[in-house]
Amino acid sequence: MSVLIVGSIAIDNIKTKLEEHNELLGGSASYASVAASLLAKVNLVGIVGKDFPAEYIELFRSHGINLDGLQVVEGRTFRWSGEYEWDMNQRKTLSVELNVFEDFSPRLPENYRKTPIALLGNISPLLQHRVLDQMENPQFIVADTMDLWIATARPALLELLKRIEMLVLNDSEARQLTEETSLIKAARNILRLGPKYVAIKKGEHGCLLLSRDDFFSCGAFPLEDIHDPTGAGDAFVGGFAGYLAGLGKKNASFADLKKAVVYGSLLASFCVEAFSLDRLKKLGRKEVEDRYELFRLMSHFEVIE
Amino acid sequence: MSVLIVGSIAIDNIKTKLEEHNELLGGSASYASVAASLLAKVNLVGIVGKDFPAEYIELFRSHGINLDGLQVVEGRTFRWSGEYEWDMNQRKTLSVELNVFEDFSPRLPENYRKTPIALLGNISPLLQHRVLDQMENPQFIVADTMDLWIATARPALLELLKRIEMLVLNDSEARQLTEETSLIKAARNILRLGPKYVAIKKGEHGCLLLSRDDFFSCGAFPLEDIHDPTGAGDAFVGGFAGYLAGLGKKNASFADLKKAVVYGSLLASFCVEAFSLDRLKKLGRKEVEDRYELFRLMSHFEVIE
Repeated sequence: MSVLIVGSIAIDNIKTKLEEHNELLGGSASYASVAASLLAKVNLVGIVGKDFPAEYIELFRSHGINLDGLQVVEGRTFRWSGEYEWDMNQRKTLSVELNVFEDFSPRLPENYRKTPIALLGNISPLLQHRVLDQMENPQFIVADTMDLWIATARPALLELLKRIEMLVLNDSEARQLTEETSLIKAARNILRLGPKYVAIKKGEHGCLLLSRDDFFSCGAFPLEDIHDPTGAGDAFVGGFAGYLAGLGKKNASFADLKKAVVYGSLLASFCVEAFSLDRLKKLGRKEVEDRYELFRLMSHFEVIE
Repeated sequence: MSVLIVGSIAIDNIKTKLEEHNELLGGSASYASVAASLLAKVNLVGIVGKDFPAEYIELFRSHGINLDGLQVVEGRTFRWSGEYEWDMNQRKTLSVELNVFEDFSPRLPENYRKTPIALLGNISPLLQHRVLDQMENPQFIVADTMDLWIATARPALLELLKRIEMLVLNDSEARQLTEETSLIKAARNILRLGPKYVAIKKGEHGCLLLSRDDFFSCGAFPLEDIHDPTGAGDAFVGGFAGYLAGLGKKNASFADLKKAVVYGSLLASFCVEAFSLDRLKKLGRKEVEDRYELFRLMSHFEVIE
């Protein structure tokens, strides 16, 4: 099965306390697509300007990503600059230029419309709706969102929740959306709003996956060094959706979704080991599978005798 | 096997945003002993004043805790008052009265000296040394510590690390002790200072257990409501040491220590469900074992097909 991925494609300037790199490939769709491409065929939907470097187009192509849904238009590509504190959970945005992204209206080519799995990356809920409107009988829709849309587009987001199988968001966003401090209560409230599943990301502390009846607590793969946390959440949902598509089942079980969450966590762990997509783009499936087994062993404990 | 536990015994006043309770049983040895008593025979070492309520003595006795090492002296018991923010990871100390604890010198009764497992609860490293000096051939010593001792008694703490099998501390303390931001690097540095094992507690995010060759990442049991986080870390080490003692093995394997860490996490999860020891004191072993199995199921994921 293939997976449709829509989101932003950006040129980033990123500063950490130790390094600074400019003109990097970024954006939610870039991270998610390259992560997913290890596990399934990806149909990308996005927009870039004429200034978008050919080498980044080539990077997508070399990962077998279908670019029929990529609009290349007059103007400059979306740009973002950010800076991380020593505590890399803290970052500040130095500048944002929407550029061509300002007038983005996702258009699905005919050959995308029947894609069975879709990842609605972190863009306005209105645009996420517009993608759904163009799809035919999707099997599993997973949507990402962020604090900005919860604050400014709540009605459209609440409508979206009725149309998707799964919402992914981080812990502070789950609290913001539900006004609950307990993440489990927040998750249960979100399930009441429509989706069958919700995943709450806890950054370096892993992630929770809930359905009405099931619960999975997934740790994060422990890393000695984190070079650039940008895109970790996008690599997570990309890995998740890619695993689900690669599995090719019509009805994925909760056990399947748990594995998909682990794949997502691992793709995120590779993502942050280098700036931009520098680690993801060189990653092989075997490396991911080896880390999966290592992670399984280090998370495992025996039953009581 | 039995376990020797030394630490503070206190009367606490605790305020959260929702509740306030005074004259509560508190202190590291109280939490750790009651938690451990579910799993093994406990030899308690501590000090209280003549004002210490008889009902709390009775609580220890009813849990089969040996009080031969409890000094009851003229004066007032150690007192602590604290207040938690909405984010219960944040608390401020409102007042501390050391009282009889100021001149505490742990004395081990003859029948304690050969206890095979010892938990050196969170007290000054000098006192922890004094306990060790009185023990005969202990098999497994686990010590807890805190930021205060790392800052004010570093040489004694470093000496202690050469005499113990395992150090338990929280994430910020591990960073403080080693001046490493990465917890894994911090843990490796601590192992180089002497102990065979180190456990780094991450509060509501679980705990890491490391040896030179092995690694275990343990999540925290997810809770909907936390009423009082006081003593969670003490219940953790108490549960850990109690499980190890109850196991009764001369040489515990890493798999055994992983289970002990899970027991510790679960005892901590019960601890925070009520103020003071109100939940721990009513807890039965069966409840802990049921939660163990539930936790195992919710943390488990399958191998790749």
